[in-house]
Amino acid sequence: MNYRKVAGLIRQISRRYFLRRGPRIVALGGGTGLPVLLRGIKEYTDNITAIVTVADDGGSSGRLRGEFGILPPGDIRNCLIALAETETLMDRLFRYRFGQGKELAGHSLGNLLITALVDIAGDFQNAVKEASKVLKVRGRVLPSTLNQVVLHAELADGTLISGESNISHAHAPIKRVFLTPEECPPVPEAIEAIAQADLILLGPGSLYTSVLPNLLVKEIAAAVKRSRALKCYICNCMTQPGETTGYTASQHLRAIYDHVGRGWIDFCLVNTQVISQEKRKNYAQQGAAPVVVDVPELVKLGVSLVAADLLEENELVRHDPHKLARAVMYLVGKG
Amino acid sequence: MNYRKVAGLIRQISRRYFLRRGPRIVALGGGTGLPVLLRGIKEYTDNITAIVTVADDGGSSGRLRGEFGILPPGDIRNCLIALAETETLMDRLFRYRFGQGKELAGHSLGNLLITALVDIAGDFQNAVKEASKVLKVRGRVLPSTLNQVVLHAELADGTLISGESNISHAHAPIKRVFLTPEECPPVPEAIEAIAQADLILLGPGSLYTSVLPNLLVKEIAAAVKRSRALKCYICNCMTQPGETTGYTASQHLRAIYDHVGRGWIDFCLVNTQVISQEKRKNYAQQGAAPVVVDVPELVKLGVSLVAADLLEENELVRHDPHKLARAVMYLVGKG
Repeated sequence: MNYRKVAGLIRQISRRYFLRRGPRIVALGGGTGLPVLLRGIKEYTDNITAIVTVADDGGSSGRLRGEFGILPPGDIRNCLIALAETETLMDRLFRYRFGQGKELAGHSLGNLLITALVDIAGDFQNAVKEASKVLKVRGRVLPSTLNQVVLHAELADGTLISGESNISHAHAPIKRVFLTPEECPPVPEAIEAIAQADLILLGPGSLYTSVLPNLLVKEIAAAVKRSRALKCYICNCMTQPGETTGYTASQHLRAIYDHVGRGWIDFCLVNTQVISQEKRKNYAQQGAAPVVVDVPELVKLGVSLVAADLLEENELVRHDPHKLARAVMYLVGKG
Repeated sequence: MNYRKVAGLIRQISRRYFLRRGPRIVALGGGTGLPVLLRGIKEYTDNITAIVTVADDGGSSGRLRGEFGILPPGDIRNCLIALAETETLMDRLFRYRFGQGKELAGHSLGNLLITALVDIAGDFQNAVKEASKVLKVRGRVLPSTLNQVVLHAELADGTLISGESNISHAHAPIKRVFLTPEECPPVPEAIEAIAQADLILLGPGSLYTSVLPNLLVKEIAAAVKRSRALKCYICNCMTQPGETTGYTASQHLRAIYDHVGRGWIDFCLVNTQVISQEKRKNYAQQGAAPVVVDVPELVKLGVSLVAADLLEENELVRHDPHKLARAVMYLVGKG
């Protein structure tokens, strides 16, 4: 064991047991967007609370939800992995997905581990805590509610769609989304974290199926609006076909306000990097386009705009965890 | 953290990193018998090598073997758990079995973890090594061969049965068992451990489906016979219907000698505790009876008899790990 290893070990131990450093950040979301944000900000602070939507009903999560009656573990799992110590064996096991096997193909081993932990630890929340321990997670991950909720959408043409995985393929613009049961209590720790936060982040991620479901838990929306933390909406860079086709940045924000009331978001974080013609073409084939940042409309909604290059150098248009984290940390203390 | 905890921690660390203490014991077997033995002897020595049969084709192991083409992980998993640090979360996860779920019911999570580790670590042997690390295993667990082998039995009436799970329900006495392919190389570490052992243990466990399959790997049988270690056969306490119906202790031993040659076992360890009428009745209903210890015949086969109370205080007739370990440790140094 050489000097660097010893120094690293001491830093690790002191981080884990003594120093809980950095601003208190609460991030609400789900899907693939929230993990990207978490992966970035964990380099700046240990005080992270991720509040994750549990309305997922597709894929491995949906199968486990249906057969075991547990909350869908997928989005939670991805957030745990994002905050985990990387390159450990546990990290790899939680990230593993079975590629073959009649019964197992498509199942995430992390989901199966969480399913077993629910049984071993007694309930879903304790299962997530135990998983956090073995993954050496920095911060904590909480479901927005412990209730089994179903997400529904009312479309502009009056159709009613049920189930998160169906809503993301809506054939007409979404008018509103709602949960059943309507009354779903939040996890008390989530409310506490929101009250004590320095900064509350919404997104990035699917507007109606990842970001909004958290705010549809009424006490969470109320706590967020009540909190003295700075609040920032991180806008997606591309529209999502079926879910936000043609939406500008202000329309994203307006959708949130339409669901839970106006005037409480301080900042809107948007990307400035130009998206190349080639990428646009690729995305256009799937019905997606860059989100237009309509500054005058955003200003009308009373938010301050923070614009920065947020994208990965990649074929896909994706937020870069580190660029995103730097932009977010810039906001801290702007109150 | 109090004094006792600190002392325990120091002991644990020194055991793990500095002191590899105790006699070098190699135990060959499989099924449920070998784990019982391992659970007992790990209290006396860190130098344990368990060599485990990989001919299993039933249950969760059989399903994974069929669908993933990996070695059947079940018997190996049970040995890992037996040698693991107990009451850790990993230990619990490896022991967990899914009770529900259309696709998952009956699957052992430990087997699924080993299946994933084969993919992550590159091969079966590395998978077992990685599992040993996370389970903090004392000693090591090796498959007797890395080949996919099938166990066959030739019965007294001439019938040929294939597959371990079928053989345990044989309708006539078993004449001999054999593996295909006949030439299956052993793991080199197993040969090395056998050569350096102080004591080699066979059983307890199913004679034809757990103990003998290891010796059917020719180089393992040759190494065992060549080794200067003391060799002890731990005889089962009850016969197994279909597999060893009506067998005396000497018939067990003779079956081993018939397969791999005579005269190399030093001791035969048998139970002395009388089995109650009630237990006999229960077992008789399934066609099982206490194994008769026919001393004169055993003496003719040239083994020394070691007799001790080996049973658990329980409704089932099972070896007690601690009584078994005490009897085994008595043998060490008797050479």
